[in-house]
Amino acid sequence: MRNFKMILQYEGTRYQGWQRQETSENTIQGKLETLLSKMCGHKVEVQGSGRTDAGVHAAGQVANAHLETDRSPQEILEYMNSYLPEDIAVVAVEEVGERFHSRLNAKGKTYCYRVINSPLPHVFERKFTYRVEERLNIDAMKEAAKLLCGTHDFAAFTSAKKSKKSTVRTVEEIRIEEQKDEIFFYFTGNGFLFHMVRILMGTLIEVGLGKREVFEMTEILASGKRERAGALVPAKGLTLLNVRY
Amino acid sequence: MRNFKMILQYEGTRYQGWQRQETSENTIQGKLETLLSKMCGHKVEVQGSGRTDAGVHAAGQVANAHLETDRSPQEILEYMNSYLPEDIAVVAVEEVGERFHSRLNAKGKTYCYRVINSPLPHVFERKFTYRVEERLNIDAMKEAAKLLCGTHDFAAFTSAKKSKKSTVRTVEEIRIEEQKDEIFFYFTGNGFLFHMVRILMGTLIEVGLGKREVFEMTEILASGKRERAGALVPAKGLTLLNVRY
Repeated sequence: MRNFKMILQYEGTRYQGWQRQETSENTIQGKLETLLSKMCGHKVEVQGSGRTDAGVHAAGQVANAHLETDRSPQEILEYMNSYLPEDIAVVAVEEVGERFHSRLNAKGKTYCYRVINSPLPHVFERKFTYRVEERLNIDAMKEAAKLLCGTHDFAAFTSAKKSKKSTVRTVEEIRIEEQKDEIFFYFTGNGFLFHMVRILMGTLIEVGLGKREVFEMTEILASGKRERAGALVPAKGLTLLNVRY
Repeated sequence: MRNFKMILQYEGTRYQGWQRQETSENTIQGKLETLLSKMCGHKVEVQGSGRTDAGVHAAGQVANAHLETDRSPQEILEYMNSYLPEDIAVVAVEEVGERFHSRLNAKGKTYCYRVINSPLPHVFERKFTYRVEERLNIDAMKEAAKLLCGTHDFAAFTSAKKSKKSTVRTVEEIRIEEQKDEIFFYFTGNGFLFHMVRILMGTLIEVGLGKREVFEMTEILASGKRERAGALVPAKGLTLLNVRY
């Protein structure tokens, strides 16, 4: 068996997320596994760097799969792109050592959350952005973002049920960039809990709207309580940009 | 009756084009007229600066309508955006003199045609671009574009049937800009015939692929024959950017 690493792009709009489900045909992992199983004639498991939720997009998801095949990486890429639906694409395939594992070897990830801050709808970006009509205070959001960076217990910023697994993560950077009436939020870290980026975003937006004070970030982190943090913002604004190894 | 000018954006993907049709509910003009007729309680006609074909997008279509209403331009904008489907938006409304006519007063228009020049699919841009896998020669296309600019009889570059109407138009500029693996073609002129931009594009692409020589442009123009020009490229790559008055 040869091990192949691939970089994937997808628009998450019409999928139930990355993870294969018994009850739904409609997942990214499911689509890829069905296709590669057909190509190889054996059951293929595709391992992603992590799950993306229903509706979340990816510009640089990384996955790997062990395949019994004579095809070159380029041939695999071409085969996949000719059969995948138009909202999923493979942008790179390379052969890697048999021990490479896209999730276990991942050292960090960057997500981008896009906010349209305008009273006007954005027709062309509507599927990739979340629109906030009221003017956001970017300086306040930047201050709050600084307090959220670093190594913390992010238990307050996840929808996952309490378990024995650690909820400590390191957020290396939250970069906020304004471009006309759009605001890009880049989150880089060693790993993110279930819903973590979207709850961080909801909290930052509440700071931007003046509904919360910057200093509250420290209190929310210390509390470890989900109900202290902000709302979960919609999946459609979120894109997994890249995975670092 | 007050006369209102509006600037519209739409993704043309799921519409039968701009122009109202007896047989289809699914046109941009139809959607706008139905909505404004409901708002005003009288039959409203919305006059566009020109038709866009099925599948063509607009970032700055201009239209006007005579309305019996007490609403302010801002109120009309908000009313419309709250009822329009998410792939149509009004980005500006202003009251204008009763003689303003969006089509008759238009002095010029700019369209953009977007080409992805890559062997890889582009998931996020797929609905707004046309992909050409083979490498295009941009310098050759720029040379050919120069020959197409100016005041010419563009009879060879339209799908419209021969009629007594003049097919002379002035193309002021065809600007070609490369950005990574995407090529933007900007067409500015005083008016464009039916399918003209898409046939000009098809012809330029054939030059870029080496299937035609630059000098042929002059011959095609002189011939006035549709069959001498290149193929009609897909509507989805085309966007009406703005209308000049």
